[in-house]
Amino acid sequence: MLKGYTLPRTPAGTSSLSLAPPWHYVGNALAVEFDAEPSTVASFLPDGLEPESGRCCAYFAEWQYASDDGEEYLDPVRSQYRETILLVAARHAGEPVAYCPFIFVDQDVSLMRGLVQGWPKQIGSTWVTRAYDLPSRAAPVLGPGGKFGATLSVKERRLVEARITLAEMTDTLPSPSFARAVNVRHLPDLAAGRHDIPTVHELVQLKSRDVAISPIWKGTAALEFFDHPYLELPALRPRAVHAGYRFTFCFTVDDLVHLRDLRK
Amino acid sequence: MLKGYTLPRTPAGTSSLSLAPPWHYVGNALAVEFDAEPSTVASFLPDGLEPESGRCCAYFAEWQYASDDGEEYLDPVRSQYRETILLVAARHAGEPVAYCPFIFVDQDVSLMRGLVQGWPKQIGSTWVTRAYDLPSRAAPVLGPGGKFGATLSVKERRLVEARITLAEMTDTLPSPSFARAVNVRHLPDLAAGRHDIPTVHELVQLKSRDVAISPIWKGTAALEFFDHPYLELPALRPRAVHAGYRFTFCFTVDDLVHLRDLRK
Amino acid sequence: MLKGYTLPRTPAGTSSLSLAPPWHYVGNALAVEFDAEPSTVASFLPDGLEPESGRCCAYFAEWQYASDDGEEYLDPVRSQYRETILLVAARHAGEPVAYCPFIFVDQDVSLMRGLVQGWPKQIGSTWVTRAYDLPSRAAPVLGPGGKFGATLSVKERRLVEARITLAEMTDTLPSPSFARAVNVRHLPDLAAGRHDIPTVHELVQLKSRDVAISPIWKGTAALEFFDHPYLELPALRPRAVHAGYRFTFCFTVDDLVHLRDLRK
Amino acid sequence: MLKGYTLPRTPAGTSSLSLAPPWHYVGNALAVEFDAEPSTVASFLPDGLEPESGRCCAYFAEWQYASDDGEEYLDPVRSQYRETILLVAARHAGEPVAYCPFIFVDQDVSLMRGLVQGWPKQIGSTWVTRAYDLPSRAAPVLGPGGKFGATLSVKERRLVEARITLAEMTDTLPSPSFARAVNVRHLPDLAAGRHDIPTVHELVQLKSRDVAISPIWKGTAALEFFDHPYLELPALRPRAVHAGYRFTFCFTVDDLVHLRDLRK
Repeated sequence: MLKGYTLPRTPAGTSSLSLAPPWHYVGNALAVEFDAEPSTVASFLPDGLEPESGRCCAYFAEWQYASDDGEEYLDPVRSQYRETILLVAARHAGEPVAYCPFIFVDQDVSLMRGLVQGWPKQIGSTWVTRAYDLPSRAAPVLGPGGKFGATLSVKERRLVEARITLAEMTDTLPSPSFARAVNVRHLPDLAAGRHDIPTVHELVQLKSRDVAISPIWKGTAALEFFDHPYLELPALRPRAVHAGYRFTFCFTVDDLVHLRDLRK
Repeated sequence: MLKGYTLPRTPAGTSSLSLAPPWHYVGNALAVEFDAEPSTVASFLPDGLEPESGRCCAYFAEWQYASDDGEEYLDPVRSQYRETILLVAARHAGEPVAYCPFIFVDQDVSLMRGLVQGWPKQIGSTWVTRAYDLPSRAAPVLGPGGKFGATLSVKERRLVEARITLAEMTDTLPSPSFARAVNVRHLPDLAAGRHDIPTVHELVQLKSRDVAISPIWKGTAALEFFDHPYLELPALRPRAVHAGYRFTFCFTVDDLVHLRDLRK
Repeated sequence: MLKGYTLPRTPAGTSSLSLAPPWHYVGNALAVEFDAEPSTVASFLPDGLEPESGRCCAYFAEWQYASDDGEEYLDPVRSQYRETILLVAARHAGEPVAYCPFIFVDQDVSLMRGLVQGWPKQIGSTWVTRAYDLPSRAAPVLGPGGKFGATLSVKERRLVEARITLAEMTDTLPSPSFARAVNVRHLPDLAAGRHDIPTVHELVQLKSRDVAISPIWKGTAALEFFDHPYLELPALRPRAVHAGYRFTFCFTVDDLVHLRDLRK
Repeated sequence: MLKGYTLPRTPAGTSSLSLAPPWHYVGNALAVEFDAEPSTVASFLPDGLEPESGRCCAYFAEWQYASDDGEEYLDPVRSQYRETILLVAARHAGEPVAYCPFIFVDQDVSLMRGLVQGWPKQIGSTWVTRAYDLPSRAAPVLGPGGKFGATLSVKERRLVEARITLAEMTDTLPSPSFARAVNVRHLPDLAAGRHDIPTVHELVQLKSRDVAISPIWKGTAALEFFDHPYLELPALRPRAVHAGYRFTFCFTVDDLVHLRDLRK
């Protein structure tokens, strides 16, 4: 009897790339709200979602993760990772949701957990300016005037650069928000003649629990997407850049809602 | 209409982590045949496979890959990767096959292609001694007396070390062989109450075509598996180490046989 | 007229691996005090230093750096790095000092700044548990009972693991301390016959200014050094492990004292 | 008595980042000859060298290295590295030489050996298309029509892309050539008031022995340098691109000629 939530499945079940949920997360995030071309945003939406607007949000986060029993954060190479997430506004059954056309992480464990949830994860390198608990010329203040940067590079090409200057506190999280993410779980077939008939192709609604959010700082932002030879992220480049945010949040994931099988 | 063989699926379809097959590969490989404890090998086999013996083979390879139109090897960060593969002998319907309990690659694209085929891929770092077309004190001869090494490290821990000293040419590839690999494709569910009822859990037989193999060098070998806190690879550590091999091979993948749905 | 504090020196001087001082740093650090075998510690001391005891301290830090004009932390791949530092107690001219037999960083810029100061830097991978400003199962509390880990891996081998459980606040920094570091600046010659007659070989005393230190947490610790085929760090492995610490500190470097030319 | 050719110096002397010479190398290289703006090339030359022309050559190589006793290539993470080297034509005492304004490697050991020789090495990521000993759609032929690519990325930004299509064999190596490299060894001071009075600042002529070169393939080439916010390499971007080359070479280094102390 092999055990394990994901491959590899083994006698003891401790080798699986992703251990079974619940998955606990805490992270420091920067976010930049922006508008892309609405028709382009619409062209990225899967079946089952309706266009909403050109509103998007880019998130950049430094995460630490733990499973239920594990204290993976004591061997932090198992626990820490960095992530860039692009969310676009959409509607599902008339309700506002967030759809993710691109997401990049720097650890395989996070990539696997993502695929289970339909996040279209690829490996990418995200860097995020850190605040420290001491005033220093080597760090921004976490307060008015504090300047933060974030970058994304994929396969050695710089793809995104963000800058945020904090101004004031706010009660409102950036939008579109993780809290309303709808993904497509997808596993293709490799049998000859069936390459375009996926084994799994379904719309799912993400769920999280035990969410907590730090005080939220808001300010002005700049955001740039660079050209890329094959990744289509630049098609969603900002036409207008709105507010930037900096906050910490934590949550737990151990559920998901199957919305609809898209294989017809 | 979104396009793409895997996530992310996009308007132009050029952003998918893995492009659609066929996938063409060429690689330089070292291999070491060895025996692990037969009952331990049996304990790693999935439903649908029967134990055969304790015979195993560890492969270490430097690959270059291309899709059908693409010349990914001209932007080699898209094309090159290194891999360690452990295969164990098994039987399926009475026929000898190879089963892979552990496999490690260093590129996300390869990881994704692997998951589609049921390879239980994780990110790991493989290094393989290179031969060059000039005699040098910095490289082994590709011939009698030539010494080659290979190593595997996973999440910053050295897990495997191999050494091979070539002695003679042979007509026989190492065994168990890729050519008979049977994998388990597996995608778990995340909906509450269904964490142990996978969405996909099936036995598949891999296929390849247009296989070509260079002259095969064979010799003596040493192979060591190091302790690890949670990866169970050391349970399969060698009780006896047999021959080592060095060869180049190439092949194309665009098919797979669905053997059996293991969800009962 | 080429410009640049270090190589490469170029017309505009912006390409140098290390920009000119002052260098501003802020970092979160874990530290573990321990005793190694005193005679072994003595065997690692350079000419000009006298043995003091077997007292050592291992530091693990996540740094952010900036130069005077630059806001390198807005492009954090230029600014952030992680470091493991081993310091041993010694005496110079009768005064207690700290000597560094081994230090590992993960960025070339830090390596170059280090060589200028005589730090014997190599590339290594350090991971340090992070505290966050929210209670979470994915992070320790920065207070009594909070558990932190740190690891060092060098060329893919795990070399050091540390664990600390915080208990109480203290006014005392760990010892031996950075504040008293004495290094050996060293540049060998490559001319035939002169490989053991270094171009630079001198004892220097480090200096820092504008030092600030956060509240310091102290507690119990575990520390393990693993075997390595050629790095001699395990010779300094703990015979007794004392307190562990967690604190944030910042400082600026733009000076150094030349103590003595060791070339006789 | 501490031992070691470079820092760290230790009781057994096996921990030094670079072991003592001789250093044996073998590598597969691509090279592209091109012309940059002559006055810009002149502006990159150090004191002691005279301008020659705008002729430059970019080299991209996959190396394997060994010391005299060591068989580092059996633990290849110690031995293998990739490198991009830019050489520009210059004159010294009327004789043609090659000067290196920029060079990038991906291993600390190579960086340290380089600094000893005055190579202005930084960490960068080079990828080079590989040829294999089997015909495959995943690799170019090493012969007429074979297409090879090489890329350089530094701190996550793509900086250089090269493409070469082989046409014919030649007896002539690309120029400017390694065989005539003149470097500046440089170590700055950190003592206050002396930041611009380097401890070491001298012109040196590199030497190598036991050089061997494979058959040399030559063909057409493309070469592109991308903009960068602070690295001045793009100032040397091609005005005209000439031939491309592919060859293997090996050599040994254990000597160097001190030409002139540049500190006046």
